[in-house]
Amino acid sequence: MQGSRIIVALDKPTPREILEKLVSSLCDLVSGYKIGLPLLLVNGVSIVGELREQCPKVLWMADLKLADIGYIMSLTASVVGEYFDAIIAHSFVGYDDALDKLKEACKESNLKLVLVYSMTHKGALEIYMKLRKLLAEIIRRTDPWGIIAPATLPEIIKEARALFPGKKIFSPGIGAQGARPGQALCAGADYEIIGRMIVESSNPRKAIEEVIRAQEEALQCRTAI
Amino acid sequence: MQGSRIIVALDKPTPREILEKLVSSLCDLVSGYKIGLPLLLVNGVSIVGELREQCPKVLWMADLKLADIGYIMSLTASVVGEYFDAIIAHSFVGYDDALDKLKEACKESNLKLVLVYSMTHKGALEIYMKLRKLLAEIIRRTDPWGIIAPATLPEIIKEARALFPGKKIFSPGIGAQGARPGQALCAGADYEIIGRMIVESSNPRKAIEEVIRAQEEALQCRTAI
Repeated sequence: MQGSRIIVALDKPTPREILEKLVSSLCDLVSGYKIGLPLLLVNGVSIVGELREQCPKVLWMADLKLADIGYIMSLTASVVGEYFDAIIAHSFVGYDDALDKLKEACKESNLKLVLVYSMTHKGALEIYMKLRKLLAEIIRRTDPWGIIAPATLPEIIKEARALFPGKKIFSPGIGAQGARPGQALCAGADYEIIGRMIVESSNPRKAIEEVIRAQEEALQCRTAI
Repeated sequence: MQGSRIIVALDKPTPREILEKLVSSLCDLVSGYKIGLPLLLVNGVSIVGELREQCPKVLWMADLKLADIGYIMSLTASVVGEYFDAIIAHSFVGYDDALDKLKEACKESNLKLVLVYSMTHKGALEIYMKLRKLLAEIIRRTDPWGIIAPATLPEIIKEARALFPGKKIFSPGIGAQGARPGQALCAGADYEIIGRMIVESSNPRKAIEEVIRAQEEALQCRTAI
């Protein structure tokens, strides 16, 4: 987790050789990789064992956005624990018979639990954003290692930072979804999750170097506050 | 979708040979199979192509409880469309840039969309159950093929039946989670999703026959109302 503040999102099913090359070529510039559901469904979770050999010391996050009963979420944690360091779940499923069980399973599988506080898309305004008080209560009760808060809404990141001072904050929504690199860090996030902007660039390494420059400027903005 | 009103839930990672045998041995007694995330992560989604050869004419549902932005959910639909007939998603992610995109992707991949109206576990009371009005609005706007409502809460099934008269209602929560077989049908559900009670039985065929008997009685209860 040294170096930049970038978690690269790999979501799209991609041939293993291309993924391995990408992971190894960006390894010295990133804090971690976040692997999405579509990729895992096609390749099976064991692909992550092979990918992390290309970059073993960073954080590997399973982005499954878990939102099920405790039994299924625990089963899932026990299945991904061998390959990942962290797992993302939704907080709106509640604590009892849901996140309580998942938290236990994460402990057994040595997984860091990361809970969604809010989302990046327009539809989040219809319901997700209205529930922040309830969600914050469930997050406090679950006491996860990290929080997801949207880079597209810096005020929500500031709010999450104030509510959960000891937690790592991860912010998706940079690039394709509209936020500028560095914007979430400036608001108080620890890491920015970036996918298409890097992965679909003709030169991912150059794209990531540009992000790092923007992040460095943004961190100055934080000192300035 | 002829015959019984049972969808068998296969969630636990299991060797392919055992799954194939189970699927073929229950085929004439079920309306479909619902495949869960832990199994799909371990085996990869292509296993469903092999499983459905054992029982091609029933409904195959991808139980991914999707709860992500439209881009990721659409990508997922395009990935599972080749193997499944239906896909389950959460309604709380909202319509704009979420379910609108998923619905489009389902159409392209010839997938029936099934949305969660409420959940079965205790933690659903903390937040999910409080949101039914908002969730119903999003479901109406999305206009899915089916709805998920918990067998453990028959009043919620009755409510869903009244709110969404034209939709198929699927009810999980029978057996391990506490509801009796037939209870959800009596309240108005079309199908009962049953996992551990059948799959972990020493004689799954016998277990399913007992469920069918209970369901037949329950359907009489419905006529009686």
